[in-house]
Amino acid sequence: MVEYLYLFINVDKWVTDESATPFKSFMNIRFFDPEFLREVAHGIFTAFGAPAAEAAIVADHLVEASLMGMESHGVTRILQYTQEFKAGRVKPAAPITVDSETPTSAIVDAHLNFGQVGAHKLTDVAIAKAREHGVSIVTSRNFPHTGRLGAYTTKVAEAEMIGIATIAVPVLPSLGHFVVPFGGREGRLATNPVSWAAPGTDRPVVLDMSTATMAEGKIRAAHAEGQTLPPGNVIDAQGRAITDPKDFYGPPRGNILPLGGDLGYKGFGLGILTALLGSALGGENLTEVSEHHNNMAMIAISAASFPDPENFRQRVQENMDYLRSSPPAEGFDEVLIPGEPEFRKYEERIRTGIPLPEKTTWAEICMIAREFGVSTSVP
Amino acid sequence: MVEYLYLFINVDKWVTDESATPFKSFMNIRFFDPEFLREVAHGIFTAFGAPAAEAAIVADHLVEASLMGMESHGVTRILQYTQEFKAGRVKPAAPITVDSETPTSAIVDAHLNFGQVGAHKLTDVAIAKAREHGVSIVTSRNFPHTGRLGAYTTKVAEAEMIGIATIAVPVLPSLGHFVVPFGGREGRLATNPVSWAAPGTDRPVVLDMSTATMAEGKIRAAHAEGQTLPPGNVIDAQGRAITDPKDFYGPPRGNILPLGGDLGYKGFGLGILTALLGSALGGENLTEVSEHHNNMAMIAISAASFPDPENFRQRVQENMDYLRSSPPAEGFDEVLIPGEPEFRKYEERIRTGIPLPEKTTWAEICMIAREFGVSTSVP
Repeated sequence: MVEYLYLFINVDKWVTDESATPFKSFMNIRFFDPEFLREVAHGIFTAFGAPAAEAAIVADHLVEASLMGMESHGVTRILQYTQEFKAGRVKPAAPITVDSETPTSAIVDAHLNFGQVGAHKLTDVAIAKAREHGVSIVTSRNFPHTGRLGAYTTKVAEAEMIGIATIAVPVLPSLGHFVVPFGGREGRLATNPVSWAAPGTDRPVVLDMSTATMAEGKIRAAHAEGQTLPPGNVIDAQGRAITDPKDFYGPPRGNILPLGGDLGYKGFGLGILTALLGSALGGENLTEVSEHHNNMAMIAISAASFPDPENFRQRVQENMDYLRSSPPAEGFDEVLIPGEPEFRKYEERIRTGIPLPEKTTWAEICMIAREFGVSTSVP
Repeated sequence: MVEYLYLFINVDKWVTDESATPFKSFMNIRFFDPEFLREVAHGIFTAFGAPAAEAAIVADHLVEASLMGMESHGVTRILQYTQEFKAGRVKPAAPITVDSETPTSAIVDAHLNFGQVGAHKLTDVAIAKAREHGVSIVTSRNFPHTGRLGAYTTKVAEAEMIGIATIAVPVLPSLGHFVVPFGGREGRLATNPVSWAAPGTDRPVVLDMSTATMAEGKIRAAHAEGQTLPPGNVIDAQGRAITDPKDFYGPPRGNILPLGGDLGYKGFGLGILTALLGSALGGENLTEVSEHHNNMAMIAISAASFPDPENFRQRVQENMDYLRSSPPAEGFDEVLIPGEPEFRKYEERIRTGIPLPEKTTWAEICMIAREFGVSTSVP
């Protein structure tokens, strides 16, 4: 199996970008029924030994991310999770435990069960504690890759709360840290995301952002497609600004800048917060090499602790309407509130299906399915 | 009194920037003993009717910000607070009340007492609740300008907790909103800051950042100094990128971009979070014109709820040492962790004194002092 190489390619760009036509035809994009992909994923994860309900959590999560246009967190991750399952770094059906519990806090240990299974449990615990005590913080232990962080803050928002979540990635044996501190030239952080969500009257408002300028997956995709990177995101091993992905992969390998450009101390500072909440608080140290992927923290704040919770959604919505009422700047059609682009893509793909490169990602998923006796014939 | 005009001028830049020499000599920078400035400020605020302890909170806060090099939140604010006191928008000695209290949450109403007095009380309440229940969230009502947000998260850090704080600024009659939503060209937010702090073994780690690219005060300073702005921060009323501060002030007035450049949806999203925590949660709506300045929220998370709190500082410090161990990029001497530049400036100014432009800021402070019978003769 080609390790990771095609995992994060920006399929959506090919579909809309004329200049990518030769590559697109080479990759042979095909649109898949989400329900079919969900069944294939579910079949594979149950074949790994996951109970049906847990396999469904992971399959639903990946298909939803693909529907939202977040390829890097979508069904292509089946490839990574299979590798990790085979290497013993994902242990389906492992018991999830709730440790170090207080009325307002806990540490959820996934014992290397799928990250999504751990993160849903962690989120449920955070919601239950905030429902009873107003506010809570729950952190993780032994979580593999949890997927799209916004999925979990959205779940908190649906419970009439504000959810604030972070993920810090420890030093992984294969990848190390490739986001530099502001003013530094060697990686000391990952692209550690921050997400928050709140309920609106139409749908939740969801911010889900990396604290770096660029995901490593996007550099990989540009590399595979022979394209250059937008300036201001990536540096080579000497700390010089680069736009050619070749110079990033070296060797020696380059690094990614924190969010903010000249104000990169802001992205750097937010990245550190993810490390303190997800690791230092719970007793871990991000500087140690770790086999597990994601150190997660969730803060849940119930609107019910504050006056007038009945109208909380309405107030959020009024604020969003006010923001949206700004006329667009040059080059924009309208102001979109956080989460709106993903919800729109979701609605589009529910109709069009999910695009996947047939000769790489889909072919590899089929190989895995065959290996585990899961059917991939389109019904 | 020249309204606000000289409030935010970047004094520190003049002191070090050779090209600013003519302007510097025109303004006649003079260095003041911090203790002397504290006494003058304290005298003025007690003359307004503030109890001695409350006047001390405000005076200490402003002098500390000046020592840290944060001119925009330093002793120059005496001018603004005096205007607001005279206009009845700051009411010294007003009782601070703790409302809508639950074991983990509250709303602190300053009833227009100084913002610093309200914010210290809010922080004390957040710490006390987190000490007892592990985690807390406290929001504000009727707070005038609170000053440097990092002062309050630092106080939480000193109590062996992680503090996360936000400020949202409602629509002010004089200023409106001048930070645009990502993709918009009309202001719908202020430069709403986010701060977090955690205890280290040497000193606290403190991030204190605006969610916009530039403070309005910096544009005002560049305007006063006849300088251009760095590109990528400010747009005119039509949404076009500008670098001349004249084009910002118009009329029609321009606007400031959210943090992130092409990734400005991130700064925008963080700015919205400040509005939801500081306003929507507590029952207010940021879209309404308001006479008070700052809607604050503080989340306090006690390390004592988690395993191994005794070594929490040590783990934070190890993480900071790891970050700092990155060799510097071109143009940098070293990696600085959040809060370090301000602590260093503090140590420098404890020796050199606090620089102020004698013919404007200091002259105006003297006028106010004279009006209220406070001595400004240097001892």
